[in-house]
Amino acid sequence: MELQQVTHIDNVRLSDDGTRVVYIDQTQLPNRTIYKETNKAEELFRAIYELQVRGAPCIGIFAAYALYVLALQIPHEEFEPFYKELVRQRDYLNSSRPTAVNLSKMLDRMDACAKSHSGDSHAALLEAMRAEACAIHQEDIDMCYAISSYGLSLVKDGDTVLTHCNAGPLATSRYGTGQGPFYLAKERGINLKAYCDETRPLLQGARLTAYELQRAGVDVTLICDNMAGMVMKQGKIQACFVGCDRVALNGDAANKIGTSSVAVLAKHYNVPFYVLGPSSTIDFHCATGEDIEIELREPDEIRKKFFAEPVAPEGVKCYNPAFDVTDHSLITAIVTERGICYPPFSESFRKLFPEQFE
Amino acid sequence: MELQQVTHIDNVRLSDDGTRVVYIDQTQLPNRTIYKETNKAEELFRAIYELQVRGAPCIGIFAAYALYVLALQIPHEEFEPFYKELVRQRDYLNSSRPTAVNLSKMLDRMDACAKSHSGDSHAALLEAMRAEACAIHQEDIDMCYAISSYGLSLVKDGDTVLTHCNAGPLATSRYGTGQGPFYLAKERGINLKAYCDETRPLLQGARLTAYELQRAGVDVTLICDNMAGMVMKQGKIQACFVGCDRVALNGDAANKIGTSSVAVLAKHYNVPFYVLGPSSTIDFHCATGEDIEIELREPDEIRKKFFAEPVAPEGVKCYNPAFDVTDHSLITAIVTERGICYPPFSESFRKLFPEQFE
Repeated sequence: MELQQVTHIDNVRLSDDGTRVVYIDQTQLPNRTIYKETNKAEELFRAIYELQVRGAPCIGIFAAYALYVLALQIPHEEFEPFYKELVRQRDYLNSSRPTAVNLSKMLDRMDACAKSHSGDSHAALLEAMRAEACAIHQEDIDMCYAISSYGLSLVKDGDTVLTHCNAGPLATSRYGTGQGPFYLAKERGINLKAYCDETRPLLQGARLTAYELQRAGVDVTLICDNMAGMVMKQGKIQACFVGCDRVALNGDAANKIGTSSVAVLAKHYNVPFYVLGPSSTIDFHCATGEDIEIELREPDEIRKKFFAEPVAPEGVKCYNPAFDVTDHSLITAIVTERGICYPPFSESFRKLFPEQFE
Repeated sequence: MELQQVTHIDNVRLSDDGTRVVYIDQTQLPNRTIYKETNKAEELFRAIYELQVRGAPCIGIFAAYALYVLALQIPHEEFEPFYKELVRQRDYLNSSRPTAVNLSKMLDRMDACAKSHSGDSHAALLEAMRAEACAIHQEDIDMCYAISSYGLSLVKDGDTVLTHCNAGPLATSRYGTGQGPFYLAKERGINLKAYCDETRPLLQGARLTAYELQRAGVDVTLICDNMAGMVMKQGKIQACFVGCDRVALNGDAANKIGTSSVAVLAKHYNVPFYVLGPSSTIDFHCATGEDIEIELREPDEIRKKFFAEPVAPEGVKCYNPAFDVTDHSLITAIVTERGICYPPFSESFRKLFPEQFE
């Protein structure tokens, strides 16, 4: 088996001279792959605010690099005035998406790093911040690699896997979670084919997942969400891989709308259904999916967004939930960076994450 | 209970002076409701060819009226030259959609009507043709009414019913089949609410069903196809009504892609799933759904059609089946104009349609 060269997407990185952040403007995908490069606070803010950079891990990595390149420009070598300005920049970046937990978490990490080097030389402090941003990035790559590796162990050479929405390299780094095994398979010379749901209404599957997989040379076929049942019935699908936004203690998993329907279809057609995500998405304090509140979004996302003209009559009621909860009874296994959890999930979580239950 | 005035859509009719066909240009929906009126052969041809008029029954009715208004313009009162020209017009109209069975069937009926009146006066012959076109129309209304009436008997006041794709007034006449019970409920003052799948890739649910239901004053909520499972899980749906394109002898039912997934979800969430259609869609010579060939359509319907710009990368493979087959084991009942068939379907078909088994 020949190992293959895989061109991973560098969705976020430092410029070669280390003074600017380089990133893909994801709003232009899949029709234009545009790399932007900046060290200007306002442009960095806008990159997050306008969703040019999206996906919780990707936003966190981007923000860490952003705060570092802004720190380089602060015209104070003395810690107090430097730090005062750093906090101002941190708060500014953090206000770009107030509800993004990873954004504030990684900015806090960069802040703590600066503080912990307050006694060092200014050059050493800046170098520590650079190293911290790189560590944040590398940790995400390692985590995605581990999840992808566990995920890949669940399928075999020649299998075709159905996936829904996007939890790939663009939203994270290098591998992604829900789609990570496809890229790792490619690296390892394993033939793993993909069917990819377009994922209405925002079409993340068509616009992002199909783009990423095609770019990496994975054999990918795009389908509309309502075709998933048919390809399963035809025996084309050996497993389903999806990401997750929040997992309850009993294993109920919230993810992009439509995920739970894929799981019902998979159960009906006897296809294993795997949820892949970092253990940080497991909410050990949330008993069941009933406790997960689902965001309801604008009707016009269904009626108008993306379309040349409205596709439904003016004023028609639309129900537009962003996520749904997949019942744990429909999930074959939950794959984390620490290992694979099988039902009953509350027990397997307890074994794999004992520190959460102390 | 107060009976309500329902403004039915007159999708096809004769003009008041009886010389032209009046029809809605369905390609402009839902954004513009444009009635066109013509007696010109080329425009009548184009109306069918360009899908301004669509839905098998609607095409049949339109073609019958079209051939009648063309017959009015034939400058021969003598039967032989009149009939020769009529056949030419019949063949011309018939070539607008060669695979539409209803088109050739209704044109043949009009042709046979003319022939059977070859001995009558020219005025009597034309009047017979007018009456035949009106009969074709009325028979469709009666059939839709019967199907709607049987369908409505399966639900109760206050219920909410999920529907998929379009088998409504625009495609038929007055009531439709798959969505017929909503209009009949409205006429009878029964409160029947609708959830309507948008039905990717061609969005017939969003563009046509939501338009028709909203126009008739039915309480309708539009959802993306991948939200059907969530609304069922929430207990919002008491039944599913769908149309059908072809039903096998064992009850396997081919209908718009996505229908079979709705059926799997309905079974999982214990929601009854009803297929509504004229008995002419039952193929008594087709043993099971395995024998039904599914049309595969253009990838660009998924990637490009309707969208302001492509939503998936250039050249990505797309799998785009137009229909799927719902296994009979997932169907609660099949509703025809002659009555309701319950499983085992081959037996209930035999009871309801004994003449097919002689």
